[in-house]
Amino acid sequence: MASASAHGGDRRPSVSGGSTRVAVLGASGYAGAIAAMLIHRHPFFELAHVTARSEAGVRLDDLHPRTRVPMELERWDADAQSDVDAALVCWPHGVAAPAVAALRERGVRVVDLSADFRLRDRGVYEDWYGEHGAPALFGKAVYGLTELHRDAIAGADLVANPGCYPTAALLALAPMARAGLIGDVVIDAKSGVSGAGREPQDSTHFVTADENMTPYKVPRHRHTPEIEQELEGQGARVTVTFTPHLVPLAQGELVSCYVTPGREHDDGEVADAFDRAYAREPFVELRLGPPAVLDVRETNFCRLSVHSDPRTGRILAFAAIDNLWKGAASQAVQNLNLMFGRDEREGLA
Amino acid sequence: MASASAHGGDRRPSVSGGSTRVAVLGASGYAGAIAAMLIHRHPFFELAHVTARSEAGVRLDDLHPRTRVPMELERWDADAQSDVDAALVCWPHGVAAPAVAALRERGVRVVDLSADFRLRDRGVYEDWYGEHGAPALFGKAVYGLTELHRDAIAGADLVANPGCYPTAALLALAPMARAGLIGDVVIDAKSGVSGAGREPQDSTHFVTADENMTPYKVPRHRHTPEIEQELEGQGARVTVTFTPHLVPLAQGELVSCYVTPGREHDDGEVADAFDRAYAREPFVELRLGPPAVLDVRETNFCRLSVHSDPRTGRILAFAAIDNLWKGAASQAVQNLNLMFGRDEREGLA
Amino acid sequence: MASASAHGGDRRPSVSGGSTRVAVLGASGYAGAIAAMLIHRHPFFELAHVTARSEAGVRLDDLHPRTRVPMELERWDADAQSDVDAALVCWPHGVAAPAVAALRERGVRVVDLSADFRLRDRGVYEDWYGEHGAPALFGKAVYGLTELHRDAIAGADLVANPGCYPTAALLALAPMARAGLIGDVVIDAKSGVSGAGREPQDSTHFVTADENMTPYKVPRHRHTPEIEQELEGQGARVTVTFTPHLVPLAQGELVSCYVTPGREHDDGEVADAFDRAYAREPFVELRLGPPAVLDVRETNFCRLSVHSDPRTGRILAFAAIDNLWKGAASQAVQNLNLMFGRDEREGLA
Amino acid sequence: MASASAHGGDRRPSVSGGSTRVAVLGASGYAGAIAAMLIHRHPFFELAHVTARSEAGVRLDDLHPRTRVPMELERWDADAQSDVDAALVCWPHGVAAPAVAALRERGVRVVDLSADFRLRDRGVYEDWYGEHGAPALFGKAVYGLTELHRDAIAGADLVANPGCYPTAALLALAPMARAGLIGDVVIDAKSGVSGAGREPQDSTHFVTADENMTPYKVPRHRHTPEIEQELEGQGARVTVTFTPHLVPLAQGELVSCYVTPGREHDDGEVADAFDRAYAREPFVELRLGPPAVLDVRETNFCRLSVHSDPRTGRILAFAAIDNLWKGAASQAVQNLNLMFGRDEREGLA
Repeated sequence: MASASAHGGDRRPSVSGGSTRVAVLGASGYAGAIAAMLIHRHPFFELAHVTARSEAGVRLDDLHPRTRVPMELERWDADAQSDVDAALVCWPHGVAAPAVAALRERGVRVVDLSADFRLRDRGVYEDWYGEHGAPALFGKAVYGLTELHRDAIAGADLVANPGCYPTAALLALAPMARAGLIGDVVIDAKSGVSGAGREPQDSTHFVTADENMTPYKVPRHRHTPEIEQELEGQGARVTVTFTPHLVPLAQGELVSCYVTPGREHDDGEVADAFDRAYAREPFVELRLGPPAVLDVRETNFCRLSVHSDPRTGRILAFAAIDNLWKGAASQAVQNLNLMFGRDEREGLA
Repeated sequence: MASASAHGGDRRPSVSGGSTRVAVLGASGYAGAIAAMLIHRHPFFELAHVTARSEAGVRLDDLHPRTRVPMELERWDADAQSDVDAALVCWPHGVAAPAVAALRERGVRVVDLSADFRLRDRGVYEDWYGEHGAPALFGKAVYGLTELHRDAIAGADLVANPGCYPTAALLALAPMARAGLIGDVVIDAKSGVSGAGREPQDSTHFVTADENMTPYKVPRHRHTPEIEQELEGQGARVTVTFTPHLVPLAQGELVSCYVTPGREHDDGEVADAFDRAYAREPFVELRLGPPAVLDVRETNFCRLSVHSDPRTGRILAFAAIDNLWKGAASQAVQNLNLMFGRDEREGLA
Repeated sequence: MASASAHGGDRRPSVSGGSTRVAVLGASGYAGAIAAMLIHRHPFFELAHVTARSEAGVRLDDLHPRTRVPMELERWDADAQSDVDAALVCWPHGVAAPAVAALRERGVRVVDLSADFRLRDRGVYEDWYGEHGAPALFGKAVYGLTELHRDAIAGADLVANPGCYPTAALLALAPMARAGLIGDVVIDAKSGVSGAGREPQDSTHFVTADENMTPYKVPRHRHTPEIEQELEGQGARVTVTFTPHLVPLAQGELVSCYVTPGREHDDGEVADAFDRAYAREPFVELRLGPPAVLDVRETNFCRLSVHSDPRTGRILAFAAIDNLWKGAASQAVQNLNLMFGRDEREGLA
Repeated sequence: MASASAHGGDRRPSVSGGSTRVAVLGASGYAGAIAAMLIHRHPFFELAHVTARSEAGVRLDDLHPRTRVPMELERWDADAQSDVDAALVCWPHGVAAPAVAALRERGVRVVDLSADFRLRDRGVYEDWYGEHGAPALFGKAVYGLTELHRDAIAGADLVANPGCYPTAALLALAPMARAGLIGDVVIDAKSGVSGAGREPQDSTHFVTADENMTPYKVPRHRHTPEIEQELEGQGARVTVTFTPHLVPLAQGELVSCYVTPGREHDDGEVADAFDRAYAREPFVELRLGPPAVLDVRETNFCRLSVHSDPRTGRILAFAAIDNLWKGAASQAVQNLNLMFGRDEREGLA
């Protein structure tokens, strides 16, 4: 994980002679708008294009005033908008894959925020998502959970940005997976309403969501195979029980993990595993008490705590992130920083 | 459970010649105020006294306008206010016990909303709550989860009203406990801010609680032994993992239960267990899809769903209640109805 | 106003031999669903039909669980559903008028919750709303602000239920209008998100509305002529400045009125005007301190306060209602009670 | 207003040889914590001390994690903590004045966020606030509404930072005041709950504030004389009607101003007055449609719109700010920038 050359460094030059230009596809959505804002404010990258479908022609700072990005949304055109060094693709799964392929064919480095390139087993992808939109490129991406795959990301041309739930769950579980501690795990996740996207619908109407909460996608949410794949990569082969819930806040996500240990251990071992994993991580805040989502709102931070329960023998780990930031847009920029040899904290502090 | 004489009937006469008078102790708190409101509107009971400590002298409808109870809060005086047939005691654990004892000595039937009489093992009580305030009366109450102990409640003079989390968790788990299906269980609970009481504090300040959520009392919340005791009563001896979370809504509670079955079974057996348990229950709404807390707000209903997950072999059960109603005040009235031979729905529909 | 025979009485018999049957048109909307719920629970009326367009075939308690009305929504059919004594029409203006006309032709008494029959001047209607959908019936309704027109409502076959803002504003201003005190008035109104209707749209998305507030329809909101017409009816010919604001709560409305007195007066005179107007009103709560909307949530109450400001010479009046209850559904039932000779409080206490 | 040398410039050197050190007094409060965060992140200033009373000894990033300021809160000691070039005093009125005097005696430049130095007429101060805590210094401050007093602030040693309501109201009204357009004005203001401070109390309990709204301090809020004083400074001698309301959001403030023009005018004249005033202002965003508070959250921006109402002849102006940022902490930093010859945008973009 945090290697000697932690936080990146000047490993790879920019491809363009002058500034390093970035396009954000799907900047009208919540995550895309934040991604555009972060690139616009970034000291190294230059925001070259922002695209949208139905809102093409509208200025981004009219659609999302808080971004204060005074650029017009363009309709996506692979040829016209490939005059960039990199792209952040903020489209839904399925439609993202062909756009990613078109960008890669034109030599553009990509961080894809959809689910299209996260899985490594095509059968699993098709089981959970259906047919893939760019089969030739399937399996070619690096999974972009920065804290787990920093070095590979730094050398990648295509990064699959993790889902919001896997980001939080894997940060909570990876140290235990590596230590061989996970026998079984229940993941109970809670997310704010922005996770459901910007399209108005009954479930996101203020009158429906306010003062309410409910589980959803029971018992089969698409982030499940992604969590299992990456846990296996960390050494824990386990079938996870994962249930998300909708709670009445705009941004923020809390993941509560209930681990049944797979072997004998003592508490100090658990603490050591977490300290070792995160002591030098710039965006992981390990805490003694349980994390609160407001404390990471509009940041790239993940706040974590881990607790042993002597009564039950279980280990409890809690992780809080902003689903639109560390769970999407800001982690994409963290990855993009590494892909261009920058300090991963640049533009995010 | 729901016996042939379900919903009560005319089993026991009122003790007083005329109307049946009820005192609500601690009516300045959230649950107490609602209890007072429900008694005030009740077609059979008469609200005789409402008490409070620091707000004595204030009218209840000034302190809690929504109750529209135009009565003055009195300072508690066992002798002066025992001219009643029954009392709902809405005081914190520890201080509740002596008041309950004083009322019982004067022949008043009591529903106690504190934790003081819920546990049957005194060692367990002292381990989780400290010294008991009325040891002579310890163990003498009927546990007031109506759907589990209807007949015993109907004959009781002292009922220990369940905690809000046990109410929801036990309704979700009891059918599986009775069917011998619970090998192990993780209970992840989420509650609105009213659960923390009316005393202003940092954690309940709007600016702290709004747009936030966090686990609390990790890993040892006092409702745990209560859940275990009652599960054992239903046939499941299990050490439960229970973690509550604070979410940004005023009233409402959702309990997500992850059961590892203790034996082979098929899905139909689970469905049957729930149908059998709740088909005739007036206040349990069994649903195919997951429940939402807003749908039970300000009602005595519990909404439930149960789901088998073929991937993991787990059974998931979700229960939604209003923590101040079915989780406290309205369940107390449901019990009081039974204690006086009334239809348990009276004043609650 | 509150006449000697206040709160109605047995003035008019029901038209049907048996029970008095009521249809609710547009029961899928927020106000319509509450209207259906109130009729369903009503001791005198029987809910005969609930209608909806796109949700026809769905059960109302599936669409709006809190109503707990186990009836299927039907597509509206004037002939098939006119087997009722009365109808509450909860449709938008424009489309409501023809349905109201069809019902009246079949002898059904109607409370129309749209704006179609509120105005008495057709030119004003067309200026603010466009062409009218049932010109022959224009001007034939009684304006249904119960506290102002109780006697006329009791004798009416067609009542135009007031808009939510006019309800609150007129209750705050009528006593001053009658006393000749209003020289000029600024009305600053704030409403919860349910006022924007159930149709999902950008402005009602939780992520847009939460933690936000904004004025809207500046400077021309359609409730303005309705307020002016009724103020004139109370003796105050004035061009009002009226601005609504959207605030982040589901239900509730607060109207702040800033009156520049039109003549010399003393404070006692203002107090007397309000006391005289509302001392005997069952649903108006006159308070010394400013009202809070939560105190009237899900009730037919209006809470009011009035304050003289010696520095500026202005009179300030504040009124809080639930926009879906007193501002729509429950006031419709209050009126229906009167139209059928019932106590206006029936089914609303 | 925005002079040729807009946004400051290198007018005044820092007093210290090395870095420019700043203390924040009262950093445990909401505004103080944000002020400390802004100084901590500031490229020019160095955060030297953060003080608190009851939380002394606690780290600021434990008390307010979002600040991520890893400094211990100290108890205030005028001698020990005057080793700074400047101080932001975030204490309540009354107690702020003596601390400000102690700092000024030691040569420290001060921005005081309390009300103690905002008024110029001592009688008015005493009438609204009581006895003053440092009479010798009364009247010696520059009123720190940056857009109105930029040049004077740049040369000041003591700046009285405006109240949150006056900031928004004056930005909305100043262009009309200077143009002689204000005959009379009603100001209806709405603020989030953070405006009530961090001290837990009934009115800020989540259960009280959520889903609620209410006017407060009717008809006499202390920001009134401050608004009148500054309007007079801009040429409008007027007795304002000002009423604040509490609305259920954490941060954000909207001020709705209803101006009765004092003379004949045409619409173009109003538009010109606003364009002239704000075209070059870095932190005022003039919009055609009404502003929404979420669009300025956690920024130093004020969003403004102005509308003529031909029906009533009134001019409506709306201003949205973040009450803790432009209404307090970030405006203090904007002023501090100017006092030290920096670009006023430094550390705020």
